Amino acid sequence: MSPSDRLFPADPAQRAIARELYGHARDLPIISPHGHVDPAILADDLPFPDPARLIVVPDHYITRMLLSQGIRPAQLGVATLDGSPYETDGRAIWRRLAEHWYLFRGTPSRAWTEGVLTEVFGIDVPLGPATADEIYDAIAERLSRPEFRPRALFNRFNIEVLATTESPVDDLRHHANLAADGWGGPGGRVITTYRPDNMADFEWPGWRTRIAELATLTGIDTSTFTGFLSALRSRREAFIAAGAVSSDHGHPTARTLVLSAPEAAACYARGLAGTADAADAEAFRAHMLVEFARMSIEDGLVMQLHPGSMRNHYQALYARHGRDVGGDIPAPTNYVDALRPLLDAHGDDPRLRVVLFTLDESGYTRELAPLAGAYPTLYLGAPWWFLDSPDGLRRFREAVTETAGFYNTAGFIDDTRAFCSIPVRHDIARRADAAHLARLVAEERLPLGEAAETAADLAYHLPKRVFRLER
Amino acid sequence: MSPSDRLFPADPAQRAIARELYGHARDLPIISPHGHVDPAILADDLPFPDPARLIVVPDHYITRMLLSQGIRPAQLGVATLDGSPYETDGRAIWRRLAEHWYLFRGTPSRAWTEGVLTEVFGIDVPLGPATADEIYDAIAERLSRPEFRPRALFNRFNIEVLATTESPVDDLRHHANLAADGWGGPGGRVITTYRPDNMADFEWPGWRTRIAELATLTGIDTSTFTGFLSALRSRREAFIAAGAVSSDHGHPTARTLVLSAPEAAACYARGLAGTADAADAEAFRAHMLVEFARMSIEDGLVMQLHPGSMRNHYQALYARHGRDVGGDIPAPTNYVDALRPLLDAHGDDPRLRVVLFTLDESGYTRELAPLAGAYPTLYLGAPWWFLDSPDGLRRFREAVTETAGFYNTAGFIDDTRAFCSIPVRHDIARRADAAHLARLVAEERLPLGEAAETAADLAYHLPKRVFRLER
Amino acid sequence: MSPSDRLFPADPAQRAIARELYGHARDLPIISPHGHVDPAILADDLPFPDPARLIVVPDHYITRMLLSQGIRPAQLGVATLDGSPYETDGRAIWRRLAEHWYLFRGTPSRAWTEGVLTEVFGIDVPLGPATADEIYDAIAERLSRPEFRPRALFNRFNIEVLATTESPVDDLRHHANLAADGWGGPGGRVITTYRPDNMADFEWPGWRTRIAELATLTGIDTSTFTGFLSALRSRREAFIAAGAVSSDHGHPTARTLVLSAPEAAACYARGLAGTADAADAEAFRAHMLVEFARMSIEDGLVMQLHPGSMRNHYQALYARHGRDVGGDIPAPTNYVDALRPLLDAHGDDPRLRVVLFTLDESGYTRELAPLAGAYPTLYLGAPWWFLDSPDGLRRFREAVTETAGFYNTAGFIDDTRAFCSIPVRHDIARRADAAHLARLVAEERLPLGEAAETAADLAYHLPKRVFRLER
Repeated sequence: MSPSDRLFPADPAQRAIARELYGHARDLPIISPHGHVDPAILADDLPFPDPARLIVVPDHYITRMLLSQGIRPAQLGVATLDGSPYETDGRAIWRRLAEHWYLFRGTPSRAWTEGVLTEVFGIDVPLGPATADEIYDAIAERLSRPEFRPRALFNRFNIEVLATTESPVDDLRHHANLAADGWGGPGGRVITTYRPDNMADFEWPGWRTRIAELATLTGIDTSTFTGFLSALRSRREAFIAAGAVSSDHGHPTARTLVLSAPEAAACYARGLAGTADAADAEAFRAHMLVEFARMSIEDGLVMQLHPGSMRNHYQALYARHGRDVGGDIPAPTNYVDALRPLLDAHGDDPRLRVVLFTLDESGYTRELAPLAGAYPTLYLGAPWWFLDSPDGLRRFREAVTETAGFYNTAGFIDDTRAFCSIPVRHDIARRADAAHLARLVAEERLPLGEAAETAADLAYHLPKRVFRLER
Repeated sequence: MSPSDRLFPADPAQRAIARELYGHARDLPIISPHGHVDPAILADDLPFPDPARLIVVPDHYITRMLLSQGIRPAQLGVATLDGSPYETDGRAIWRRLAEHWYLFRGTPSRAWTEGVLTEVFGIDVPLGPATADEIYDAIAERLSRPEFRPRALFNRFNIEVLATTESPVDDLRHHANLAADGWGGPGGRVITTYRPDNMADFEWPGWRTRIAELATLTGIDTSTFTGFLSALRSRREAFIAAGAVSSDHGHPTARTLVLSAPEAAACYARGLAGTADAADAEAFRAHMLVEFARMSIEDGLVMQLHPGSMRNHYQALYARHGRDVGGDIPAPTNYVDALRPLLDAHGDDPRLRVVLFTLDESGYTRELAPLAGAYPTLYLGAPWWFLDSPDGLRRFREAVTETAGFYNTAGFIDDTRAFCSIPVRHDIARRADAAHLARLVAEERLPLGEAAETAADLAYHLPKRVFRLER
Repeated sequence: MSPSDRLFPADPAQRAIARELYGHARDLPIISPHGHVDPAILADDLPFPDPARLIVVPDHYITRMLLSQGIRPAQLGVATLDGSPYETDGRAIWRRLAEHWYLFRGTPSRAWTEGVLTEVFGIDVPLGPATADEIYDAIAERLSRPEFRPRALFNRFNIEVLATTESPVDDLRHHANLAADGWGGPGGRVITTYRPDNMADFEWPGWRTRIAELATLTGIDTSTFTGFLSALRSRREAFIAAGAVSSDHGHPTARTLVLSAPEAAACYARGLAGTADAADAEAFRAHMLVEFARMSIEDGLVMQLHPGSMRNHYQALYARHGRDVGGDIPAPTNYVDALRPLLDAHGDDPRLRVVLFTLDESGYTRELAPLAGAYPTLYLGAPWWFLDSPDGLRRFREAVTETAGFYNTAGFIDDTRAFCSIPVRHDIARRADAAHLARLVAEERLPLGEAAETAADLAYHLPKRVFRLER
């Protein structure tokens, strides 16, 4: 990354400390234990498409902000569900972004995109209406070169391990291809993550179809709850064989619940019969978190919990473009009551490891830091989604460190589908942590040497340890 | 305003940037799209009363703080409902303020009042028990001069447009007088705002009487729900003729609800019959927000939502002095569920514009910035009431900018009835924004030129655009 | 305390102001109106036990953090309920702390412990695995000297008054001994606090037994509710005779409720009969807060409310080691609705004084500052428990000052059972307040002279006044 002082505090003495601490983290390899990069990108290693399809179309941070000011996703190339027209001219899409680039002032999307332009593509011209074409052409030219193929960039980005995220009914073919090329499998550079939300949620469209797919894929009868659990376990084995070290769970709430075996079986049966109501669905999701915890105790997968997002809040957007286009909105999220059934059952078991994420910062000091600072099973994930920004990262450290310390946190998570933005995202996190640590040093709260060690731990050693990537 | 460095960060480099950015905003005209100045003040243009009645008696920020330390509102000149005695000697009231002035250390009331004394009245002596009389006499002397009449001050304050707030049953006579003098009407300097809370809330004392007044004022039969809506529409036309560009809605919650036409009519009928219960009242308020949104889509008034205040929490205060004397307390406020019915119905309609305010900062990053950063209909209003303070303004920018950017916010709102404090309030907001932007510049997150443009936009261009004052 | 610049901002100009302001507070006597020091320590004035039993074993901040990383309380000397073995070798415990000392980076536990080592015991060697034995021996050597006896330290610490906390069924014998030595009683140096939670809560194990003990201790029949109240009043008299100036109430919620006399009597009768359900228990706790407020109006004890902790959340920990070993977790806490019944009944009565504490920072600006900034009965207690840390203290001042000012807060509360850590805790609070005030001065929001007066008020004069210790 650049030698700039980006994100460092203005005071010269504190800035010098931040610069020094950052120096201890800057060049460490990237550990990316949770994200949404399409494994096909690295399995196939084809050139990236045009600049707009690389940077604008799939990035709902960008299309969301433009929509908020009236530029419709269809004008930005986002495909429509009903086949109505949408922009297909990459240059036109790019010009629209450039024209409204001022909307992104002060946002991480701007920092990430500028980082991609500057650091990945070597473009030093500021983006704007006057420079749109020049920059578009420059990116397009780079993308045609072999050194901008995905695997070449992976090497250049100094990524040690990257985890993608798949459903249990994914056949993991891309990961098989990666393994065949020496890039995947246990201990490999590109690994998978087991994300069974669409199996645990009756309300997810197509749930019953997917249960049937699970039976087909595993050869296990999923018509009973015990068969269903066996099939899920079978897929965990396949995921572990594809390098997985963790599972991920993105439920609407953090609710957990211990149903008895007959209760759980009956609830599942109602789901299959199509007679489950909303309370059944919530109870089943809550119970399944406990089942997944039990599986984790057996097989060692680290559990990631990502609760508290109200999916598809923006109905008109969902109707036109489907899921994951920027219409999800966070909701208040309780952990202290919600996690208690799980913690009462398994919270003291050292084999279980749960990494908690949140979109509700009001829980940082009230619930999350106290929980992670007490239970040996619990770790705090990095600020998530709307919060993995410079000020969001600062608030996280300022809020949780005094109660949970640094070593009950899990290191930075980029959580991105934008492959080219991975280095700049990690760089920003390393800078933000260096800035936080520099304040502690400047205020005589931590000696410089320990701060330097902590900076390196947060950037590299801690995520490796917490996500069991040292094995 | 003064050449001081008030509110700017201590670091010399960052302070210099803040000073420069502030220079781009400082002298721009004031846009005041929401406030509670009595239009009679400007319509009649009479000299202000004595210093205590100008500065202390009507300001519930000040009387509230003094009450919290045992100085009763009646001792400060606040009229009693039962006719029991209250202080009428302006000088005695002023001395009480001066004696307890230390209570206001670190509060915006102190900054506003000192700004009024210094900038408006040219008094450089610090307020305190020893200087109370001297300052009182100095203000009184100024108030007798023609250049301290309201319209003269309006000119001196460089106010371009000031919106007052009236109920639909207000006859708008003061605005008619202002229009007659060339000060009011569409595009005028003093305009009104349509605030129908007391029409939409069965629980507001005198609701049925007011429905009758509405019928009288409009000549429309309000005994049916459709008649009621027609009468409200008729008043909107009158308000628009008096310059209104927005409506304002101060409900206990942000709850919205789409009732069917028969349901709404039946609910209204129960209200008129006096048989509505608390659930009816909440449902009616919630549905009326949707009705007002529909009217806004038709006539273009911007909707302001100010939810989440528990009115008259301090019962003994309410019993002695009535409404709006400092006894309202905020309550936890949900937006993500509450606004969903309205947004499902009309959130994608570019003709609708809703500016959201809050007293619950925990929603900034969790709900408000994500909502405003997705829906083209939504903007975030400035920090409100207890939050429109230097640190409150800073927290707002730090919390919402990374998700919603600057351009989904609506500029500063002074929301005040204290006419003389308007310049200092806007000045503080401009300084706070300059300080925030200076940090972004110092931390290499925004180039200086763009920050300067943003400072001017936040101070002037953005509120003008968001509140449709450019027409 | 040391001449260091610990906790002061890095900017040289602001740091110089902070240093000057701190100078006005640093040497003032310590007022400790709420804490959990065992009065036997000062009554008996015996030498402290070994370093591990002094610093590690009883401090659930420390054992909690170590547990969160898998070091079990039994390995740290915490006694087990079932008699299973636990570490008894002080040196082994101390080495375990030293080995994992890096876990405490950035936590107040580290700052407090280092303050104890440096300031109390004069040890300048940094703690770590290599220095564990050296430091252990140095502390042990000091503890054998007379000048390290509790009363000698009390004098050296410049404590003016220290309040301990006892249940109404405590016989106050240690306080009697202190009074006999001229250290206790009304106006004394060591006083008690009336904490009746275990009398007001049916769900507290052994409640009925304790009601019987109360009858025995007071000679008052507690089989009726009026008798129960009389017995509680009788104990308040005894506590006041032992110097008490306040009561303390640590309920799960801030809920208050005014039951009629027959309702309250019936509820109490169900409690005694063992037929009360959870709703009865909550109602009784809520009503008892109102009863205690009425007693306070009579006898002048200041009420402290500490709501919002979910006790014994960590069930496995509770099962092994019992209460107060680090397994309590905060929960979302509402004040605005919960306190309303109490405030409607007595919130305007100048004889009542209630100090509110919270573990839920989301209420600072939304509920707590507005409440304390309006009701003359209400004050805000210092940040509590997980929040009485440098950044916690800063957030408190930044959040509440603009609405409630400084003079509706109650000064620092150390709330500790770790006697030797009292000076460093107060020193950190004085530094944090100096840093906050220095920012106001640097940003031209408060003149230096007033800031200096405020620094001294917050450190000494304000807690003395709020807790009625001036009498």
